[in-house]
Amino acid sequence: MKLGSLKNDTRDGALCVVARDFKIATIAYDIAPTLQAALDDWDYCAPRLQDLYDAANRGPEGSRWFEPDFATFHAPLPRAYQWLDASGYLVHAERARRARGADGGGKEGDPRFHEISKELREEPLMYQGDSDAFLGARDPIPVESEDAGIDLEGEIAVILDDVPMGVKREKAAEHIRLLMLVNDVTLRNLVPAELAKGFGFVQSKTWTAFSPVAVTPDELGAAWDGRKLHLPLVVHVNGALLGQPNAGADMTFDFPRLIVHAAKTRPLGAGTILGSGTVSNKDPKAGICCIAEKRALEMIAGGQATTPFLKFGDRIEIEMRDAEGHSVFGAIEQEVVRIGHRATLVEPAADAG
Amino acid sequence: MKLGSLKNDTRDGALCVVARDFKIATIAYDIAPTLQAALDDWDYCAPRLQDLYDAANRGPEGSRWFEPDFATFHAPLPRAYQWLDASGYLVHAERARRARGADGGGKEGDPRFHEISKELREEPLMYQGDSDAFLGARDPIPVESEDAGIDLEGEIAVILDDVPMGVKREKAAEHIRLLMLVNDVTLRNLVPAELAKGFGFVQSKTWTAFSPVAVTPDELGAAWDGRKLHLPLVVHVNGALLGQPNAGADMTFDFPRLIVHAAKTRPLGAGTILGSGTVSNKDPKAGICCIAEKRALEMIAGGQATTPFLKFGDRIEIEMRDAEGHSVFGAIEQEVVRIGHRATLVEPAADAG
Repeated sequence: MKLGSLKNDTRDGALCVVARDFKIATIAYDIAPTLQAALDDWDYCAPRLQDLYDAANRGPEGSRWFEPDFATFHAPLPRAYQWLDASGYLVHAERARRARGADGGGKEGDPRFHEISKELREEPLMYQGDSDAFLGARDPIPVESEDAGIDLEGEIAVILDDVPMGVKREKAAEHIRLLMLVNDVTLRNLVPAELAKGFGFVQSKTWTAFSPVAVTPDELGAAWDGRKLHLPLVVHVNGALLGQPNAGADMTFDFPRLIVHAAKTRPLGAGTILGSGTVSNKDPKAGICCIAEKRALEMIAGGQATTPFLKFGDRIEIEMRDAEGHSVFGAIEQEVVRIGHRATLVEPAADAG
Repeated sequence: MKLGSLKNDTRDGALCVVARDFKIATIAYDIAPTLQAALDDWDYCAPRLQDLYDAANRGPEGSRWFEPDFATFHAPLPRAYQWLDASGYLVHAERARRARGADGGGKEGDPRFHEISKELREEPLMYQGDSDAFLGARDPIPVESEDAGIDLEGEIAVILDDVPMGVKREKAAEHIRLLMLVNDVTLRNLVPAELAKGFGFVQSKTWTAFSPVAVTPDELGAAWDGRKLHLPLVVHVNGALLGQPNAGADMTFDFPRLIVHAAKTRPLGAGTILGSGTVSNKDPKAGICCIAEKRALEMIAGGQATTPFLKFGDRIEIEMRDAEGHSVFGAIEQEVVRIGHRATLVEPAADAG
């Protein structure tokens, strides 16, 4: 299934079922008002949503069906009770550390200059992100100043149902209900000071955006092996390819391993979103999914980072296509804007189309 | 007003209005189904809830009123879209660092052994906590092993409405809708490794519990000055007084300052919970609100920490009384238990009483 949330006059939008080819959609008002409500009662809702999805794929006509415009869609979960983001691809963490050490004023002896330690090779990095207000896939990204070092991070995320405390790795994948794409917007120049404090990211991890729809694992066919998603994540900035690393390659900590880490001392509630961290491949020819890592590669190659961070007006595109070239999640297409027109969370209602 | 959430067959419970003297309560089904729903539409709901609260305080009779048993109450927000916890009382951070340095194997040159730096005196420490499943005030605290170093942390928290990005300090207090007490359960022996990673607390900050009710600022009278709550926070463990520091004294970063920090690069959604950090006074005679700090004081006084962390069966009580001796929020009364009977989030329904 492909599920999304149409903007309306509520904060959580209206749960929608979207046809596989994205040509038609319908509000699932007769099943659950919101995606969170469906996740809260998944065993009841999922088969009913599946019936509606099957109907959508038969190309029906009638007043309940409309052509979806993803500018009128929220993130699949417009807000969530938990957003955990990991650093599942160690090659990203290694390059990011190197970039911070050189860019962020790190010196010998500075803890943020360290190489990846043995501990970090055995246990994933993971932080709790803010989940009270996500951006939709086509929403602009409001930032106060370009001096913050505005960066994107292309990731994969899973949405979980209730995960018991202390879940075992071999049981963890059963709790993955949906997958989606992420743009984890990061203010790079605020990262070193927050890292040094040790308390995680409050100011440097600002907005997070998700793909127009979230999809059930069965939509992914052989590309999803229960642990990793074996498709390239394609990232463009202003129309130029930044990278297309395969999300299934070089994922040091796969999703079941990340779930085990998150649930070690507490259960996870239905609707928890868990991010893979920036997708990254060891082969630099695959390109990369964030600018910090591109700058790190430039420094490794020639000693000087030349790619600037994002400016107002820059456009980001994050997309994933299956083996036949069809978009799986719909594209994230966002513009960086100076803060102003979206300073608060309360959004205007949108027509159902 | 005093507002709480009665356990029922939903994850968010039923919004209740509780009389000032805690003798009667009613489900506010005619106004909003849940506290989050009321916060989402506060301008509409607040005056209607106030009318119901005024009615409750007149001691009415009738079938809608019941005698509240706080064992059947969730946290006021059983789950939230954001839980930010700060370290507003620097004296706690100083003592906690000293305790970690001595207890946690910190050595000279280890970053966690550092004294409070100039930066930390000017900018609050704050982390994003997990908010997908809070404990009610009388719920047991399930932990896997006593070896984790189980500790309580007594705090004050505010619940906010929508806060615009970049809010100014003089406007920040206007966004405080409710206050409540917190027990921020911490697994001390897991803290040093997570701090060293810099990504904040995923495993070491396990359960968080809140007082039975949250109260509007007007309930606090002169004890609330718009920035700090000037009443002692009284903490007992197994009936013995651990401390009763005044939450209005020695709060280095007051609530408006904490809100400014949290909202610097993004807005905050209605229902965001923001914690003060462990309440602590410079005068050690006031006692303390967490065991780590007591151990630090013991080390400062005599070189040896003698108070053990919590064991299974230990009972915690956190309470705040006004100048007349009346409980303001109801008491947090919890027992530490070995994990088993509450391994998942889905709870049985409770009768309305």
